[in-house]
Amino acid sequence: MPDYIEGKRPVIEALRTGVPMRRILMADNIKRDPLVNDVQRKAKRFGVEVQLVARKMLDDISERGSHQGVIAEAKPFEYRGIYDLIDLANAYAEEHDGRALVILLDHLTDAGNLGAITRSAEAVGASGIVIPNKRSARVDAATYKSSAGAISHMPVAQVANLVQAMSRLKDAGFWIAGATEHTDDSIWKANLKGKIALVMGNEHDGLSRVVMEHCDFLVKLPLEGEVASLNVAQASTACMYEWLRQNQA
Amino acid sequence: MPDYIEGKRPVIEALRTGVPMRRILMADNIKRDPLVNDVQRKAKRFGVEVQLVARKMLDDISERGSHQGVIAEAKPFEYRGIYDLIDLANAYAEEHDGRALVILLDHLTDAGNLGAITRSAEAVGASGIVIPNKRSARVDAATYKSSAGAISHMPVAQVANLVQAMSRLKDAGFWIAGATEHTDDSIWKANLKGKIALVMGNEHDGLSRVVMEHCDFLVKLPLEGEVASLNVAQASTACMYEWLRQNQA
Repeated sequence: MPDYIEGKRPVIEALRTGVPMRRILMADNIKRDPLVNDVQRKAKRFGVEVQLVARKMLDDISERGSHQGVIAEAKPFEYRGIYDLIDLANAYAEEHDGRALVILLDHLTDAGNLGAITRSAEAVGASGIVIPNKRSARVDAATYKSSAGAISHMPVAQVANLVQAMSRLKDAGFWIAGATEHTDDSIWKANLKGKIALVMGNEHDGLSRVVMEHCDFLVKLPLEGEVASLNVAQASTACMYEWLRQNQA
Repeated sequence: MPDYIEGKRPVIEALRTGVPMRRILMADNIKRDPLVNDVQRKAKRFGVEVQLVARKMLDDISERGSHQGVIAEAKPFEYRGIYDLIDLANAYAEEHDGRALVILLDHLTDAGNLGAITRSAEAVGASGIVIPNKRSARVDAATYKSSAGAISHMPVAQVANLVQAMSRLKDAGFWIAGATEHTDDSIWKANLKGKIALVMGNEHDGLSRVVMEHCDFLVKLPLEGEVASLNVAQASTACMYEWLRQNQA
C-alpha cells in the first residue's frame, strides 16, 4: 500500500522537503486559495503530476479525514538489503583507512527521530542504517523533513531480525557496540576504531535484552544532570562523533 | 504580556510537559467531550485553576482563532541575570575540578531547538544558557516539550547584548569557543578544559560576524557527508560532550 500524505500544508511541506511522489490527487471541485495554488506551483516545479479526481475518491483513501481536497501519493522508499549495505560499508572502509560505521536502531518509534539520526549519520560519513521491519518507525514524510534531505543519500536496510543482522555484520568484520545506560563503561574508554556497528535503543525502553546480549561491548554517554536523559537522536549524534574522533583525530 | 496556549490538545500537552500555568480559561458554554474532560482532569492533578468565562473573552485573547473554548495562561519564565549565571557556574567549577560550561545561543529562531539544546546541556552538567532578548527564540511551551522537563532545571539568562555577555564571561575566567563551519580547526584539537562558554549560531546563518570576532577561538565539527549540515541541537550536543570528554575522560 502506498504512503499517502493528506492536506494542503502537509503536501506542500512534503514537496518542499523532497519526498519522492508518484502523483498528487486533487478534488475536482476544490476551491482555489493561496495554498492550493502553492501545491500546484510546487508540483510543477518538482515534476509531480496533479490529477483531478472526484472528492469521493479522496474520502475513500483518507485515513484521517483531513485531506482538504489534496492527497499526495508518495513513492515507496527503496530499502536496501543488509548485504548491500555491508558491501557499501566495506568499500567505504577501503577508502577511509579502514573505518566504517553502520547504525542499527532497535525499534525506534518516531519517524522524526529516524530522520534526525539519518542527518547526523550522513554528516559523519556513516554507510547505512538498519531498522527492523516490524514495530519500528520507517521512512515517511516526517523522516524527509527531519533529515533535511539526508535520507535521500543514506542507504536504509529493513530487516526481519535485528540480531541476525548483527551476526551478518560480525561475520563481515564489524564490532557491535550497544549504547545503553545499563553499563559502567564510558564510550570514551571504548575502542571504536575501524568498522563499527552502533546499536541505539528505542525512545522508551532503550536496547532490548536480546539485542544487548548480542553486542560485542556496551558503551554509555556519561550523564551529569538531574533529569538525566538524552533524546535518542542527540545521544546517537554524540556517539557517532566519538566514533569519528577516534578514527580521525 | 503573558504567554497564552490555545486549544484543547495544546493545553493538554502543555500540562503534560509541565509548563507552569497561572490558570486555564474555559468557555462557559463549552461542549463536554473527552478532550475537555482531560483538560479538567490534568488541571486538577497539577493544581491549576480552571475558570469559566464568556467565550467572547477567549475570542479577544486568541491570537490564532484556534482556542476551541480553552486557553491556558502560562506563567512567565523566570530568566536569570548573567551575573547570577556566572556565580552558579563558578560554584559548579569549584565542586567539579574547575570545569564549567555555559552555552550562548546567537539568535536561535526555533523554541523547539532551544528545548533540545537545554536537554543535552542539562545532561552534561552545563550551568546555564544565555540568549538575546530580541530576535531570538525564547522559552515557551515548545521548549518545555522538547526539553523533556530539563528547562525547569536550567538557568537561562536573557541579555540585551550577547557580545557584552561574552565580555562578562571572559572577565570571570571563561574561554569563549564559537562553533562554526568557517574555520579549519577541529573541535577535537581545541583545548576545552576548564571554564568554557560555547557559542552556537542560528539555524540559517550560523554565528554572526561580530560574535565570531569576539570569540577566543573557533571550533568545527568535521563533516564527512555530501549533504553536510548538522541540526544546531545535534551539533550542540556533540560539542558539549566533547567538552565533557576532555574534562572527564
